[in-house]
Amino acid sequence: MSATTNKNLNSFIEIADNSDFSIINLPFGVFQPGALNKPRVGVAIGEYILDLSILESAGFFEEVFGSPSYIFTKPTLNTFIAQGRESWSAVRMIISNLLCANDPALRDKEDIKARAIIKQSEARLLMPVDIGNYTDFYSSREHAVNVGTIFRSKENALLPNWTQIPIAYHGRASSIVLSGTDILRPSGQILVGSDPIPHFSPTNFLDFELELGYLAGPGTQLGSPVSISEARDHIFGVVLVNDWSARDIQRWEYQPLGPFQAKSFATSISPWVVTLDALEPFICSGPNQEPLPLPYLQRKVNFTFDINLQITIQTRHMKDPEIISTSNSKYLYWDILQQLTHQTANGCNLQTGDLLATGTISGPDKNSYGSMLELAWNKTNPVKLSSGETRVALEDDDQIIFTGWNDFAGHRIGFGNLTGKILPVQQD
Amino acid sequence: MSATTNKNLNSFIEIADNSDFSIINLPFGVFQPGALNKPRVGVAIGEYILDLSILESAGFFEEVFGSPSYIFTKPTLNTFIAQGRESWSAVRMIISNLLCANDPALRDKEDIKARAIIKQSEARLLMPVDIGNYTDFYSSREHAVNVGTIFRSKENALLPNWTQIPIAYHGRASSIVLSGTDILRPSGQILVGSDPIPHFSPTNFLDFELELGYLAGPGTQLGSPVSISEARDHIFGVVLVNDWSARDIQRWEYQPLGPFQAKSFATSISPWVVTLDALEPFICSGPNQEPLPLPYLQRKVNFTFDINLQITIQTRHMKDPEIISTSNSKYLYWDILQQLTHQTANGCNLQTGDLLATGTISGPDKNSYGSMLELAWNKTNPVKLSSGETRVALEDDDQIIFTGWNDFAGHRIGFGNLTGKILPVQQD
Repeated sequence: MSATTNKNLNSFIEIADNSDFSIINLPFGVFQPGALNKPRVGVAIGEYILDLSILESAGFFEEVFGSPSYIFTKPTLNTFIAQGRESWSAVRMIISNLLCANDPALRDKEDIKARAIIKQSEARLLMPVDIGNYTDFYSSREHAVNVGTIFRSKENALLPNWTQIPIAYHGRASSIVLSGTDILRPSGQILVGSDPIPHFSPTNFLDFELELGYLAGPGTQLGSPVSISEARDHIFGVVLVNDWSARDIQRWEYQPLGPFQAKSFATSISPWVVTLDALEPFICSGPNQEPLPLPYLQRKVNFTFDINLQITIQTRHMKDPEIISTSNSKYLYWDILQQLTHQTANGCNLQTGDLLATGTISGPDKNSYGSMLELAWNKTNPVKLSSGETRVALEDDDQIIFTGWNDFAGHRIGFGNLTGKILPVQQD
Repeated sequence: MSATTNKNLNSFIEIADNSDFSIINLPFGVFQPGALNKPRVGVAIGEYILDLSILESAGFFEEVFGSPSYIFTKPTLNTFIAQGRESWSAVRMIISNLLCANDPALRDKEDIKARAIIKQSEARLLMPVDIGNYTDFYSSREHAVNVGTIFRSKENALLPNWTQIPIAYHGRASSIVLSGTDILRPSGQILVGSDPIPHFSPTNFLDFELELGYLAGPGTQLGSPVSISEARDHIFGVVLVNDWSARDIQRWEYQPLGPFQAKSFATSISPWVVTLDALEPFICSGPNQEPLPLPYLQRKVNFTFDINLQITIQTRHMKDPEIISTSNSKYLYWDILQQLTHQTANGCNLQTGDLLATGTISGPDKNSYGSMLELAWNKTNPVKLSSGETRVALEDDDQIIFTGWNDFAGHRIGFGNLTGKILPVQQD
């Protein structure tokens, strides 16, 4: 392996220019090098994974955790996340240095490198975190207006509380799955047209929702709200989230207590957790908030992220996947510090590794919507694909791929792919 | 210790006639005998706890788990619950026999008895289960009509989906606490009268909700619905639940995605899990369901429980606690088999120890409502207490006590007390 770029920050590991996993990204995940190996923590770098359990046993993290430590031999990131922000940053800095082309500490240790650097294609990625609680916000104004217009009316689209509260509901933690997991078409109660009663059947309106999710840090005590100034310390990192939804089930069930069966069958997350440290170059100012939020929610710093987001579809008739939406997380009205602050403002506690998601991120124009419900405007405006097919909802065998990235100083920071393919409903 | 009753089923342990923990109850819990002891699993019997970890190490459960097993040395019931229904019943049967006055196996083992039988008053009860997911249903028709009338209107009280769907939402698992835990008055966004914007302040409308909760059994695979015929096997046992609620916060936030901050600050459960085997004598027919539910929800057997429920309040000015509501779980419209079947009908998986709760149980008359919102009818009809005080919402230092029980063949089966006391909001 040799350095192939002429940028200031090079690695001795070969990294393609367009790799999501440049030397300034360093996202954390959990993997198995082989079927007989135990799961362990690693960092993605180019096409490789750096096995942190090997580096840990070689003593590279002694200054952070003392010695011996067993943080990275665990089957989830939770133990690492529980160490807190200073440890996250310290570990990241050590890894960053170890991967540098001009640092001999790892570069010249052929025996350790041989064991610690694994091709991603030869490893199995696992669910990175044990998620105890899952909150889904509703923080994109464009999405809320679109859905409100479709489900209610244009006049009644944005309810009065929306500009005051980062609206959210608790989702189902048990059915969160890793990217690549097939999604079974769910069944549920559906009311068709003016039928007097609903019927129970497979959904005819299966949809995706493009979201970012973030993992809670060390957790908090019940009764101890997190102020917006402290919220940054309580977020470990960010993943892509697809909150699969059955719109026909949702429409019938959601009043008065919110979506339930329409969402709880599956939520997919990407395998690599990109740290807030890595995303810092992309912080930008968010949409103007008018009316001004209540004091506990007022921004102290900008914390909106300029991250390109893309939705790609691959149907069974397509040769190559095709982009159907291009969005950006900078459109989010409520930022993630505001969201987390609201979550805890009543004293609700966070547990290490909790997933909080932004809700569907839709941009202002029709090619930037984050769900098929919006893209095909409630089945009235089919999405045309180059294969000649059209879509108003997901069909069996459709694969949906989310990507998210931005570039800084010639390096890319991205999430890798979040994929999920629809399988037909199972017959008894 | 000697038998003090002359019933057919006697124990060599002294059990008061009105004890919730008769020899036909045998609820499971987790406790510490002393501060230096590790948590372990026990069964409540009269004023005592039977330490199952001691019986396990003495080999009494070999026929169920093989030997050696470490099911009851764990700090939660999850490992036991994961064994499945046959094991639950087999263990219960063994314990029932061991406690019988005419069975010498334990009765005559003074050394084991000395270590395995502990006074409840000398032990510390702990959260019995690690709850991964918490679902709260809305299955009492009387409650739904009352709340719908108060929050919307009499005409619009019961939404059209209510008689078809056991309506539910996912609650917050992290803030589930054990009976006896003090409840901090939460703050949140509240819209007062015709104010143009809400303010953030401590709730002025703190409330309790009287519910039963039940723990999921060994769990299920994602994509594998549980049919209503199988649902019984997926429920380990039942606890009392108090789903504390802030009505003013709820009213402002709940549309369109349901309650969030209004509920997520605390939910209390009782420490002893009463098994379905124990509750079997109290199964009765439920309310007539008209319209008939869809086939997947149609009852195959009766599974409504005739359990007396009582809400008691103790204010700081009262000498003795006073009953403010007398209800019964037989009023539940949707039974727990229907609820669990609906939860999984879309393929959503259950994890061992998940908590599913019935929602507030209100009876038909005004003294049987399960929340202060209903008892004082949205603050318009204050509840009068014998101390001369009145209540339209909970005040600081109020303690709420739930109890639930019924009698069979001269023995009582009950849950013990579920208590929680309101503490004032903390000042920074």
